[in-house]
Amino acid sequence: MKIAIVTTGDEIMAGNIVDSNAVWISDRCWMLGHKVVLHIGVGDDRRDIGEALMSAGKKAGCVIVSGGLGATVDDITLEAASEAFGLRMVFHEDVWKGIEAFFKKVNRACSENNQRQAYLPEGAKVLPNRVGTAPGVHLAHKGRDYFFVPGVPKEMMQIFEDSIWPWLKENSEAPGYHQRFLRLFGLPEATFDQMIKGLSFEGINLSFRVSFPEVRIKLVARSKKGAEAKRLVDDAAGKIREALGDYIFGEDEETLEGVVGKLLKSKGYRLAIAESCTGGLIADMITDVPGSSGYFERGYVTYSNRAKVEDLGVPADVIEKHGAVSPEIVCAMAEGAKNKGGADYAVAVTGIAGPAGGTRDKPVGTVHIAVAGPEGVVQQHYLYPRDREGFKKIVAATALDMLRRCLGR
Amino acid sequence: MKIAIVTTGDEIMAGNIVDSNAVWISDRCWMLGHKVVLHIGVGDDRRDIGEALMSAGKKAGCVIVSGGLGATVDDITLEAASEAFGLRMVFHEDVWKGIEAFFKKVNRACSENNQRQAYLPEGAKVLPNRVGTAPGVHLAHKGRDYFFVPGVPKEMMQIFEDSIWPWLKENSEAPGYHQRFLRLFGLPEATFDQMIKGLSFEGINLSFRVSFPEVRIKLVARSKKGAEAKRLVDDAAGKIREALGDYIFGEDEETLEGVVGKLLKSKGYRLAIAESCTGGLIADMITDVPGSSGYFERGYVTYSNRAKVEDLGVPADVIEKHGAVSPEIVCAMAEGAKNKGGADYAVAVTGIAGPAGGTRDKPVGTVHIAVAGPEGVVQQHYLYPRDREGFKKIVAATALDMLRRCLGR
Repeated sequence: MKIAIVTTGDEIMAGNIVDSNAVWISDRCWMLGHKVVLHIGVGDDRRDIGEALMSAGKKAGCVIVSGGLGATVDDITLEAASEAFGLRMVFHEDVWKGIEAFFKKVNRACSENNQRQAYLPEGAKVLPNRVGTAPGVHLAHKGRDYFFVPGVPKEMMQIFEDSIWPWLKENSEAPGYHQRFLRLFGLPEATFDQMIKGLSFEGINLSFRVSFPEVRIKLVARSKKGAEAKRLVDDAAGKIREALGDYIFGEDEETLEGVVGKLLKSKGYRLAIAESCTGGLIADMITDVPGSSGYFERGYVTYSNRAKVEDLGVPADVIEKHGAVSPEIVCAMAEGAKNKGGADYAVAVTGIAGPAGGTRDKPVGTVHIAVAGPEGVVQQHYLYPRDREGFKKIVAATALDMLRRCLGR
Repeated sequence: MKIAIVTTGDEIMAGNIVDSNAVWISDRCWMLGHKVVLHIGVGDDRRDIGEALMSAGKKAGCVIVSGGLGATVDDITLEAASEAFGLRMVFHEDVWKGIEAFFKKVNRACSENNQRQAYLPEGAKVLPNRVGTAPGVHLAHKGRDYFFVPGVPKEMMQIFEDSIWPWLKENSEAPGYHQRFLRLFGLPEATFDQMIKGLSFEGINLSFRVSFPEVRIKLVARSKKGAEAKRLVDDAAGKIREALGDYIFGEDEETLEGVVGKLLKSKGYRLAIAESCTGGLIADMITDVPGSSGYFERGYVTYSNRAKVEDLGVPADVIEKHGAVSPEIVCAMAEGAKNKGGADYAVAVTGIAGPAGGTRDKPVGTVHIAVAGPEGVVQQHYLYPRDREGFKKIVAATALDMLRRCLGR
């Protein structure tokens, strides 16, 4: 079915906020096999809204309208619709009672303006709002289905999921849908693309997305039944896993730090971290995972050379001889952190984040990474010439990925 | 002048990407005193694009169209325009030479498809593209001014700034514009709003924006001359500074970590950090600032109790007695980090990020923060019941803000 999306609000016209509702709704419609053919955004203007509703109805069988259902005088979407469609506004006693009950529940005073929210165009079907006061509305008009939802994203999403999604599913010819993200690290997008070039993926929509510093492959299948769609995605994912092996670190919501955490936990290992150029970012990522205190022992952000010597026991003469950014130092840092922390594994990084501090031999972007484990230390050298934040991010991810591989996946 | 924005692209209709061009262009138009009245988004469909151009022209004197100027067969915006307006497509020798030169410069092969990009509707004025191959186009048609730009944001922005901005400025009645963000921390938005309630700001558009965990006040003035607009903003900012004092930590691009860094640098102080529940985030923020190695000595992420004892010299019996999340321990952590690091200042945090680990006396969200300096230690206690990432963010910001105040601003 062809779908049009209308968004209302002066704040969108003024460029104050991105129209994130339109993209979210489009994605959901697309999942169910519908084709979104038109977005229209207009300000809080009665005539503009009315015209937008009419234009949308000309291009699509279903129109989803977000915004302008609130309690203030700017909120005129339903009035505009009633004028454009020539419908009376009707007071809904049950809606009004629901609004009063909502205010009682959150212990706030209900204003007279809220009464406006109980007036809906005649023939409207109410779509319950469980997280706010403005109900959604379903209005069939001249063979078109109009859905009205509030502009507040969490209210819009709740009403969409509860009331619009089932309707869209029922009116879809291919509602069976399955999607999966494969999450990759370690090579450029184009290289991964090359590596899976010859493979055939029947019934699969495959796309690459870069979410720096990782790469994601999105697999989508759509068919009459969800189980069939899932089987298609499973098959495709299997083929890609064969081709890309352990460049794939996870699926969907799995993160590098989450995968590393799971490995550490399952093997009963404790981790220590020694960071120079990443400045605490690796520890920050590791501790973003709930339960990380179960395997994360401690971290050292040894920014100065003195800290490397005093806290990690790195020999001062080795710094003197090789410089703080060197294979020798990063290995000493990893071993120092492991021993000091009494940990099973330690990861260490030292490098030049820039913008200053580069030399001809060690340009900005140079970094050494080491992992110390029960069987010794491994060390790698990279060059990531990026801005400071990009450098920190890719170095932290590279370090976590190295640790993941050392832990056996 | 009324302005309409048209965005084309299947990827926007499918909900793959947010239409960030529309919001960027809207904001720029609004800055120059123009009123954006309509956004239209359509897929890569000749008829839909043509209809969108016509609808937009009915509502606005100027229409800005982004997307569909590339070299692939999907890129049909100019063809759609020529059909909708009844104009021939004309080959531009100079544009073609420019495209060839671009490919030579970046050392890539020019494909035959690129020749399509040199065909423009008759009467088109070329708007140079310095960062890509697709030129922008200015087309006057039936008293309307149409501007076409590529969908790639950096190309769109360059052409907009070079060619469209000056035109919009010339056609504006109030092109004088000045804006400023005041950045605040420490109280809720509603409280700040209350604190400046009585003040009058003539000629100023004032709005609050929450960018968790900080609050921003945006001041905008528009007038015939830029200097006059700036004076209005200066006056308003002065009044707000009087009312809010040092809740304001910075303006525009200034960050908490940047302000703290500047204070440390100017006073010649060195900083150490001891973190438990923030897991390295404070050190990560401090080291996001270029040149932070000039004042940041080291950080300790003492996640385990053993680390607090071994690395910071926190007495084990005090942890035993008061628990790791207590005023006693956070003070000992700050002093330990300061002494071990030989630093002038140290900031320390210990708390319960959750979701697990809370008790009745110390629920999830409990945190103690201390700053040790040349004149002793100060300590504060907060309760931030939030999800893990939100908790880490607001605790890190609170710690930096406390340090900022200790450093004298």
